Amino acid sequence: MTDSKQAALDYHSKPIPGKVAIEITKPTASAKDLALAYSPGVAEPCREIAKDPENAYLYTSKGNLVAVITDGTAILGLGNLGPMASKPVMEGKGVLFKRFAGINSVDVEVNAESPQAFIDTVARIADTWGGINLEDIKAPECFEIERALIEQCNIPVFHDDQHGTAIVTAAGMLNALDIAGKRVEEARIVCVGAGSAAIACMKLLVSCGVRAENIFMLDRKGVIHSGREDLNQYKAMFATETDKRTLDDAIDGADVFMGLSGPNLLSKEQLKTMAPNPVVFACSNPDPEIHPADAHDARDDVIMATGRSDYPNQVNNVLCFPFIFRGALDVRATRINEEMKLAAVYALKDLAREPVPQSVLDGYEIDHLEFGRGYIIPTPLDERLLDRVSSAVAQAAVDSGVARKPYPSHYPLKSVGDVYGD
Amino acid sequence: MTDSKQAALDYHSKPIPGKVAIEITKPTASAKDLALAYSPGVAEPCREIAKDPENAYLYTSKGNLVAVITDGTAILGLGNLGPMASKPVMEGKGVLFKRFAGINSVDVEVNAESPQAFIDTVARIADTWGGINLEDIKAPECFEIERALIEQCNIPVFHDDQHGTAIVTAAGMLNALDIAGKRVEEARIVCVGAGSAAIACMKLLVSCGVRAENIFMLDRKGVIHSGREDLNQYKAMFATETDKRTLDDAIDGADVFMGLSGPNLLSKEQLKTMAPNPVVFACSNPDPEIHPADAHDARDDVIMATGRSDYPNQVNNVLCFPFIFRGALDVRATRINEEMKLAAVYALKDLAREPVPQSVLDGYEIDHLEFGRGYIIPTPLDERLLDRVSSAVAQAAVDSGVARKPYPSHYPLKSVGDVYGD
Repeated sequence: MTDSKQAALDYHSKPIPGKVAIEITKPTASAKDLALAYSPGVAEPCREIAKDPENAYLYTSKGNLVAVITDGTAILGLGNLGPMASKPVMEGKGVLFKRFAGINSVDVEVNAESPQAFIDTVARIADTWGGINLEDIKAPECFEIERALIEQCNIPVFHDDQHGTAIVTAAGMLNALDIAGKRVEEARIVCVGAGSAAIACMKLLVSCGVRAENIFMLDRKGVIHSGREDLNQYKAMFATETDKRTLDDAIDGADVFMGLSGPNLLSKEQLKTMAPNPVVFACSNPDPEIHPADAHDARDDVIMATGRSDYPNQVNNVLCFPFIFRGALDVRATRINEEMKLAAVYALKDLAREPVPQSVLDGYEIDHLEFGRGYIIPTPLDERLLDRVSSAVAQAAVDSGVARKPYPSHYPLKSVGDVYGD
Repeated sequence: MTDSKQAALDYHSKPIPGKVAIEITKPTASAKDLALAYSPGVAEPCREIAKDPENAYLYTSKGNLVAVITDGTAILGLGNLGPMASKPVMEGKGVLFKRFAGINSVDVEVNAESPQAFIDTVARIADTWGGINLEDIKAPECFEIERALIEQCNIPVFHDDQHGTAIVTAAGMLNALDIAGKRVEEARIVCVGAGSAAIACMKLLVSCGVRAENIFMLDRKGVIHSGREDLNQYKAMFATETDKRTLDDAIDGADVFMGLSGPNLLSKEQLKTMAPNPVVFACSNPDPEIHPADAHDARDDVIMATGRSDYPNQVNNVLCFPFIFRGALDVRATRINEEMKLAAVYALKDLAREPVPQSVLDGYEIDHLEFGRGYIIPTPLDERLLDRVSSAVAQAAVDSGVARKPYPSHYPLKSVGDVYGD
């Protein structure tokens, strides 16, 4: 076993198994304390919630509690390993929720025999939490699952693999196109991959101004065009009227390559046929569609992003999901709508254009970071993310009418400890 | 609103809502830490669990994590208020799990349209945890729900309202009968109430040596006798061949009154007809079947227990559930069987007969506590409970063949921090 594998196993197993625990937030030393925490005192908040379910936000942890729920069918880079094997990822997501946004998160692994069984299961237990982060559920089932749960639950339901990826991608893409001197409305985009993340990314880019007819999406069978009869309804949304059939056809003269598929699918030769200042997002992990070294070797003018933390411009969902939930929870939003997603995109885009504080440089042990080809997306250790993204999302929720609380007085947030500061 | 009600609401709402939060147990300061906690490092434990699901106990929090699950149909003293209103009780249970046994606990409120829907829901998500504490589910549905989940889950499933109550009751009862100078095998018991706790208590007392034909159980319609045709299968187990029909009939000459029903059901006059040294467990909460003051007024020789913390001999489930789960988790038991329950009974019974440490007296601000009529059950703040009950349960699990790990080297436990000390 390599050192890095052993380090990962040690991290997860020592000194105690796992990465999260429960913490009691109220006094419990005395018999009097316990009589408030449990019987007989606990009857009072129960009665108040029975009068009005909204009181659950006042007397329980619900309002700052998000469930990370999966069926383990599409685990991050590993595929369908089933619910039990996905638990380390789900706990890890909980760690990130807490670390970056002060949100308490519990994981739930669902062993469901069908998408409907998954939907029924989650809908029945949804009252427990203030929000639901769906995770690592394979396409196309994830679309119907998310749609049904949004409809059936009165709390935000957000499939991060779709929308988190799309939001961070869109923020980076808008900056990349700007640096490349290209107009969003005219950019021709080739998207290799037609899974949940790819479809969500392209939908959100359209919301950001990309024209659908400028998008060429490819699945295993090649370009998704209007002549194909093997498309599910989700892929069919991106079927274009075109005679292009292969990646060679589509990439020639394209402005953007968006990879959400698998390793080494874009060759140096193909990259050389793209338009000047090509934007390449090669997000397959851990092995990108084209390695950054190869891309820069093929041409000097490429603007490159990957899913990897060891290269510049990492498309990392942690830039979004803690903060979009923070904003949604802070105004008790009933859902996370398109307006809130776009608010997150623009907040991320704008933050990358600001000078980087020394503390961020120190965290990565680097000397310099400045908006440009090598820095189009903020980095996860940038502490300004919490306030910038969360407050933008909260404001968008209020403005778009899905908030059940006013914009909170505790913004701007200085740290995760500011939560519930109002 | 009274001061005590306001104090309970304030406790639950200030300074932050609820009583529990998530705590990260591993380092997360640096980018390197995060690469272990989440992508890419997290893939290693996922792969190990995919190879063998038992590895979830090594690399995730599963092994020290219990879900408290309810449908809110029989909330502690409040009845059927539904799942949302039950959340403060379920969080409170989580507080007690952590406070007394170092167990991490999350609550799940299930909005199920039928017992089968509840069973299906919980069975599908059971892999998430190391154990399941069912809570506040009404009878008779709770019996079938527990039976089905024990069968379908490979982790301990324990309906605390039944078995926790039964275990603490049995421990106190054995001591009370001893003090009263009565033999268990000859004790005549009147049980008023035929719900889940009553049936579980009587079943466990039979396991402790009480003869079933000496038990007279009463529901709203009076004595449950073999001539009745309106009995469900659970009540029918306690139908006796008798011509007694009313509480007056049954209580005359009885050794034990067990109340698990409602306030003021046992009169002074009825108590006076009981045998010498009568044992009265009046566990209806907050108002017992007979008030202790009235009982002692009626006769000097009564040995009395209640469900209240402000009178001696409180039958309090917290004396059992944290420790029975601690023992079960520590040996990775597949279930909580009768042997483990009896081990808990005898550990509790024996502990009450030992001298009480000064620290316990200090916790209650009392001067003296000694085994006898006023002290037949240990008190919750007795720190010896953790080791005594948990180690007895763990040993019983090993001896009865339901343990998947050997008896742990970390026993005897000195504090909740000793968990995972081996």
